[in-house]
Amino acid sequence: MQLFYQPEISNGHHFLTQEESRHAVKVLRHLPGDILNITDGLGSFYQATIIEANQRKCSFSITEETKISPSPIYRHIAIAPTKNIDRFEWFVEKATEFGVDRITPILCHNSERRIIKVDRIRKKALSAMKQSIKAFNPVIDELLPFQDCLKIVADYKLIAHVDNSNPTLLKDQIQKSGSHLVLVGPEGDFSDKEIALAMTGGFSKVSLGESRLRTETAGIATAHLLNL
Amino acid sequence: MQLFYQPEISNGHHFLTQEESRHAVKVLRHLPGDILNITDGLGSFYQATIIEANQRKCSFSITEETKISPSPIYRHIAIAPTKNIDRFEWFVEKATEFGVDRITPILCHNSERRIIKVDRIRKKALSAMKQSIKAFNPVIDELLPFQDCLKIVADYKLIAHVDNSNPTLLKDQIQKSGSHLVLVGPEGDFSDKEIALAMTGGFSKVSLGESRLRTETAGIATAHLLNL
Repeated sequence: MQLFYQPEISNGHHFLTQEESRHAVKVLRHLPGDILNITDGLGSFYQATIIEANQRKCSFSITEETKISPSPIYRHIAIAPTKNIDRFEWFVEKATEFGVDRITPILCHNSERRIIKVDRIRKKALSAMKQSIKAFNPVIDELLPFQDCLKIVADYKLIAHVDNSNPTLLKDQIQKSGSHLVLVGPEGDFSDKEIALAMTGGFSKVSLGESRLRTETAGIATAHLLNL
Repeated sequence: MQLFYQPEISNGHHFLTQEESRHAVKVLRHLPGDILNITDGLGSFYQATIIEANQRKCSFSITEETKISPSPIYRHIAIAPTKNIDRFEWFVEKATEFGVDRITPILCHNSERRIIKVDRIRKKALSAMKQSIKAFNPVIDELLPFQDCLKIVADYKLIAHVDNSNPTLLKDQIQKSGSHLVLVGPEGDFSDKEIALAMTGGFSKVSLGESRLRTETAGIATAHLLNL
C-alpha cells in the first residue's frame, strides 16, 4: 500500500504537496477517481478520491477518516548523533518503524558529530512512517546542547548509563502511562560531569543489558523497549 | 579496546592470522612485549604478550584466559535476506551486538534475494563481535531452502507471522532455558503454504507487536527480545 502525507489536511488542504502530487500523478500515474490513502502524521488516516490529477497540486475529496489511538505512553528519545550519519539515520528509521513520539538529537561533551542536517533526518522519518503505514510522524528536534535537554519536561526521566551503581534495566522502568524521556549518549559515552548533572536534574540511570552496544543500537533497543 | 580473533587458539595456534597480524603489527604498530586481547569466538577471552611482532604471523604467549558463560538460551534466527543486502548486513551486525548464537539465511517463496555471499556476511558478524567486545562469534549458515529450515532441531520453534488467529507475542514465548528457533520472513511475508508447512512441522506463530516492521527490523527486534 502507498501512503501519502499531507500534514495540513485538517486545515482544509485537500490536495497533495508538490512532491507528493508528482509521485502520485507522474510516477504512479494516478487518474481522477482513483483512491488515495493519506495520513496527516498526527494520528489520522484518510481515504480520498482524486478530483484533479494535477502533477503539481493533486486535489482530492475525503471519503473516510480513521483516527488511530496514540500510544498510552509518550516515547521521547534524546540521543547523540553518531559520527557516521548513516548509523543515526538508521536509528531514526527503526525508531519510527517501532513508533516513537519525539527524537531530540543532543550535543554531548564526547560527541564526535557536532552538526546535523535536521531536514534530511526528518525526511528519513517521514519516509519510514509512510513505508511502515503509520499515522504518527515523530517530532525531530534541532540539535540541542546536553544541558538544555535536561530541562525537557517528562514524567519519567532516564539516562542510559552503566556504572558501579548497577542501574536497573530500562525494560523494568517503563510505566503503563505517562511521558518517558530516555537519554542515549555518544560513542565515547556521557562524561562524568554530564552524568552528575543528569542526576541533579532528576534523571535515573538505566541499563540496556549486558551487551556493549553502539549508540545507534542502544537507541534502537530503547525505541523497541518503549513499544513492547 | 582492540579485540583480536584467533578461532584456533585452543588448538595451539598461538599466533594471529595473516590479516590480524598485519593489523596488529603494521597498522597498530605493536611491538614484542605488548599486550593483546584476543577471543576465539567460542566463549573465551585471552590476554597475551607478543613474542614476535611479525606482520604475517604475529606470535604471542597467553598470560590469562577468561571463559564467558554462554546465554542460558540458545538463540537461533532463520531469516530471509533482504533485496537490499545492506539492510541484511545491518541486521547481522545488530544481532551480533545483542548476541545471537546462530543465523540461518533462508530462501522463501516470496524472497526477492535468492543468492547471498555468506563470506561477506560472516565478516560483518566477526567485525561486530570484535567491535562489541564479545567472546561468541555467531554461526552464519549458507542460504537454506525454507523446507529444510523446518527440519532444524530446537526446543521452541516459532514463526513470526500475524494473521486472524491472533498469535501471542514473541516476548511472552521466550523460555528461561532451551534452544529457540525463530523464523522471520521476506519482504513479501511467508506464503500461505509455508505457514501451513511450519504449522505441520510443530512451529507456533508469534507476533512482534502491532507495528508493521521491515524484515531486518523484525530480525533486530527478535534478536533484542531473545536477549532481554
